[in-house]
Amino acid sequence: MYECNLERMTETIKTFSTYGDAGHGGITRYSLSPEAIQARNEFVSRMKAIGAVIEFDDVANIYATIPGSDPKAKRIVMGSHVDSVKNGGNYDGILGVISAMETLETVVENNIAHTHPLTAMIWTNEEGSLYPPAMMCSGIVCYDYLPDDVKEKFRLEDKLATKDMLTGKTTFGEALEKSGFKGDKKNRLNPEQYLCMFETHIEQGPILEDAGNDIGVVDCVLGMFNYRVKFYGQTTHAGTFPMQKRKDALFAASQAIVYLHQEIDKLGYPELVYTTGEVSCHPCVHTCVPDYVDFCIDVRHEDAKVLDKVLNIIKGCAEKDWSGCSCTVEKAWNRDTIYWDTKLVSYVKQAAEEAGVSHQTIHSGAGHDAQFAAYMIPSTMVFVQSKDGLSHCELESSTYEQCTAGATVMMNAVLKADKA
Amino acid sequence: MYECNLERMTETIKTFSTYGDAGHGGITRYSLSPEAIQARNEFVSRMKAIGAVIEFDDVANIYATIPGSDPKAKRIVMGSHVDSVKNGGNYDGILGVISAMETLETVVENNIAHTHPLTAMIWTNEEGSLYPPAMMCSGIVCYDYLPDDVKEKFRLEDKLATKDMLTGKTTFGEALEKSGFKGDKKNRLNPEQYLCMFETHIEQGPILEDAGNDIGVVDCVLGMFNYRVKFYGQTTHAGTFPMQKRKDALFAASQAIVYLHQEIDKLGYPELVYTTGEVSCHPCVHTCVPDYVDFCIDVRHEDAKVLDKVLNIIKGCAEKDWSGCSCTVEKAWNRDTIYWDTKLVSYVKQAAEEAGVSHQTIHSGAGHDAQFAAYMIPSTMVFVQSKDGLSHCELESSTYEQCTAGATVMMNAVLKADKA
Repeated sequence: MYECNLERMTETIKTFSTYGDAGHGGITRYSLSPEAIQARNEFVSRMKAIGAVIEFDDVANIYATIPGSDPKAKRIVMGSHVDSVKNGGNYDGILGVISAMETLETVVENNIAHTHPLTAMIWTNEEGSLYPPAMMCSGIVCYDYLPDDVKEKFRLEDKLATKDMLTGKTTFGEALEKSGFKGDKKNRLNPEQYLCMFETHIEQGPILEDAGNDIGVVDCVLGMFNYRVKFYGQTTHAGTFPMQKRKDALFAASQAIVYLHQEIDKLGYPELVYTTGEVSCHPCVHTCVPDYVDFCIDVRHEDAKVLDKVLNIIKGCAEKDWSGCSCTVEKAWNRDTIYWDTKLVSYVKQAAEEAGVSHQTIHSGAGHDAQFAAYMIPSTMVFVQSKDGLSHCELESSTYEQCTAGATVMMNAVLKADKA
Repeated sequence: MYECNLERMTETIKTFSTYGDAGHGGITRYSLSPEAIQARNEFVSRMKAIGAVIEFDDVANIYATIPGSDPKAKRIVMGSHVDSVKNGGNYDGILGVISAMETLETVVENNIAHTHPLTAMIWTNEEGSLYPPAMMCSGIVCYDYLPDDVKEKFRLEDKLATKDMLTGKTTFGEALEKSGFKGDKKNRLNPEQYLCMFETHIEQGPILEDAGNDIGVVDCVLGMFNYRVKFYGQTTHAGTFPMQKRKDALFAASQAIVYLHQEIDKLGYPELVYTTGEVSCHPCVHTCVPDYVDFCIDVRHEDAKVLDKVLNIIKGCAEKDWSGCSCTVEKAWNRDTIYWDTKLVSYVKQAAEEAGVSHQTIHSGAGHDAQFAAYMIPSTMVFVQSKDGLSHCELESSTYEQCTAGATVMMNAVLKADKA
């Protein structure tokens, strides 16, 4: 049992919080922005200082590697991302990078014996805030191993041509060239050279806090689907058209959202989550009855059979009359539950027990880079409690002690994998 | 009893339908656009051809006047607008201009005796499609006579500085200067020089068609109010946050829309209309629970007491808990029912009876330039049946016969006002 250094973790978290500091306790640090490059430079100089070999791949993922006792052994990699959403917090992503740095620094400082080379890694553009989609560069690197319908979203040529969402003027490919971090495709994470992957991340939900546990032993990323539910009515003038003749698409969509809550809740699965986060309305003018409204519904649960039951309810909307409006239901995408490698999960659990850290098994409701890596090499995750379950906002918070506990658990799990 | 000319009306409607023809049976003719200027030029040349005197005021309203037998008598004015919404139809607004032209042409052609000068008029920018708000130039011209809270929206300096909604680059003032139709403020419609106003317009609703009547004798413009209902929740990640802890503002707003329909419908007023036409959502991302949603509600009825009952229901939303979200209700604007001049209304009714045209009394649910004029001089309107009640779309339609009947009714009502 080794422990990470609370004081160093605290200082490192504070240091990275200055790169993109937005002035209200959080950061805006888009991928490959000047602020993200500050964070990358800090990572590189800190890793060089402990003698790590630095490599970049062709999409600017960074790998910092210290040798193990067996020069032929595969590397064990730990990492996450340094980019954030607009007005994000100081923990999402960066905590996984800091934990990987802290692991390497602790191993070097304490001369901890290990067989495999150990790699700390930064994934480029996980949030996709400026250049969508999210998890872009893990998608590109793991491309050959992804299911076909996921693959489609991560073709390298397409992604290099993706324009930035702010000005529409710079492509991701141009940002890569300008970044100074574009390297060689041969340096990409690959199953010949890498044994397994660990990612530490904040929970982004309130489950650990509510249960009074600091650490989550993550067993899977929940299966999910996203569908779009569309309503077609007839636009008419707000002042001249009798109520009983109207076909109001916003009224229809409102009734459907209420109906879906009622019917889905009746199924009685407490772990099921579903979200209607996006709505569009046409013509969206105060003096016109809307003739078209749609919303998307994102549904997540571990069990595919539960997801099927929910999907049946949603699909049933298309069979109903919604106050004179018709309805169609269209699939946007889905993914099956991705289970982490059971051996790696057991190492994380043992490490948490040995460290005397309060912990529990938990699912990941959100997607992470490690989930794409899992198609290629055994992977797993460690979660750290999120205050109030908040993330993607400036209020995002975990204590320094919890963060250090997360790093300690990951480091000891890595050392178990190293010995296995 | 005189009759307007079906053949000329038909040709005129067809001619104006070419100015801004959008290729699908309708037009896009923003105020002061090249297409609107084509329509204005057609109006001016046709009115000059019958010897009318042409005047422009300082906001490009056009007045074409033929003399009456008494040179000192006040003018009787008829008019509407030539501008349209995006992808509008061939009748909204322009029918009132064509009917005014047709009246003058019929009077001149048949040497119909009349005492008062008769004026055909084009109001600038009634739709407000490019430069909001709607009825901008009748608001400016009638400014001194408007109620204080309406007035606020029509300050000349503010309106001249209004930027176009498409590019945000041109102000209404600049468009006026460039149009070639900017004239003198002294030419504005005013109560010293003008006796009364008539406006012919399509109904924009299905009431006349359902009753089998070609013409509506309009008695008032319905009182209305517009409020914004706002819901405040908490944004969280779609995958990580348990349902029972969520504060979903879109779910709250959907419940409120369904609730408002139930409660307002219970009041049992068949002529009451209410519309939730506009909705906004934040952050409106498929992976986030919305933390803010608002919608506007537009409510119209002749009786202020009925409007009050509805307003009480809407205001009550702020007292309720909407699945953990709070709610505020804010007034955008309101207007009292505006009754047309009863004498003028009786002339329209008599004219319809004498012409043997099927007709009925009807309220106007929509706002029109004549309603602002009514604060200044006695005014009234004639409605023409709208096929399927549709307007502000390419399907907008009335038969040539119905349009000509509308012009005939207005002309004979004008001649009655002339003799009074």
